[in-house]
Formats: sequence, C-alpha cells, structure tokens
Amino acid sequence: MIREIGSVEVLEGREPEFEAAIKVGVSTVLVRAGGFQGFQLHRGIERSNTYTFTLLWETLEDHTIGFRESSLFAEWRAILGPFFAHPPIVEHWTPLWEFPNP
Amino acid sequence: MIREIGSVEVLEGREPEFEAAIKVGVSTVLVRAGGFQGFQLHRGIERSNTYTFTLLWETLEDHTIGFRESSLFAEWRAILGPFFAHPPIVEHWTPLWEFPNP
Repeated sequence: MIREIGSVEVLEGREPEFEAAIKVGVSTVLVRAGGFQGFQLHRGIERSNTYTFTLLWETLEDHTIGFRESSLFAEWRAILGPFFAHPPIVEHWTPLWEFPNP
Repeated sequence: MIREIGSVEVLEGREPEFEAAIKVGVSTVLVRAGGFQGFQLHRGIERSNTYTFTLLWETLEDHTIGFRESSLFAEWRAILGPFFAHPPIVEHWTPLWEFPNP
C-alpha cells in the first residue's frame, strides 16, 4: 500500500462547496478506481483555504496509470477543478512505521 | 484531535540512521508529551531522501506550546537534527472527513 499526499488551495469563499464536492467525487468516482483503498481530507489551520488529502492505493501504478490514464481522472477533475486556485501538488509515499502499532 | 504534518529532507546516506533515530525519538521523547496521540512515518517515492511525518495531537496548543516550549523539544531535536539537510517544514491540519468511515 502507498499513500498519495496532496495539497490544494481552494478559491476563497468556495470552501463549503469544495468540501461537499470532494465527498461526491470520492463516493462516485474514486470508489470505481482499481486499487483505491481510502481517502482522508484535512483543512489547514495556518492556511484555512488550503486542504491536504491522502489517498491510499494498493500500488503506485494504480494511481499513476490505472487512475490517471483513465476517464475516471477526467470525471474527478470535472467535479473538483472549478474550486482549485492552482493545480494540486501531489507526491507518493511509502508507509514505513507508525506508533502506536495499529 | 489535530494533525501536524511535516516533511524533511535527510542528508544523503543517513536515511537508515534517521529511520532508527526517529523510532527512538518517538518512543522515548514524544510519548512523554501531553496530548501526543500518534505518529506515522512515510518515505518519499519521488524524492527518496525526503520523509513525511504525521503527528496526532489532542489540541494545537499541545504541540505549539506544550511540546515546542518544553525541554522535550530540545531532546527531540538533539536526536533527529543531525540528520536533517534543512529544518522540517510543518503545518497543522484539522481532520474533516474520511472514506471509508473508520
């Protein structure tokens, strides 16, 4: 399992719509993506119109190829793109260790 | 509960020592901090000498005041600072939503 961690600045005043739209995007689009295992949304304390999202994927390629190169990605961006001040910044991470042990 | 999410670039070649040291730091220092609830460590796939860490705190002030202004912070930095290429970049986030529901 790998984590995709991204952050995105949302257009000021559009935060409530973005928060509603991302729930629609996850429950109607991401759930259909192969290898998609989970999603977490956080809102910035220092920068309140910035959000961090974490996606759990079975493999890196489930995101970079299976999802990004499918029509699901266009559906996802159509739902969320209107609220982005800039394109999200995204990187991938391998979970190493956590405390306490899950 | 809030999340502190940070990333740090580790000096090249020091990654194994850093990974061992952070386990020591969490289990000997962070566990003594009031409001500390959990820790996750991830290693970068695109940037393999960069790590992302997530700390769970009961409140923002448990981190920014209770921990940062205590001697525990100096102990923590003494353990990990030698491996940092640059000081970590850290922000705080409020969890909003996750899927599937935990």
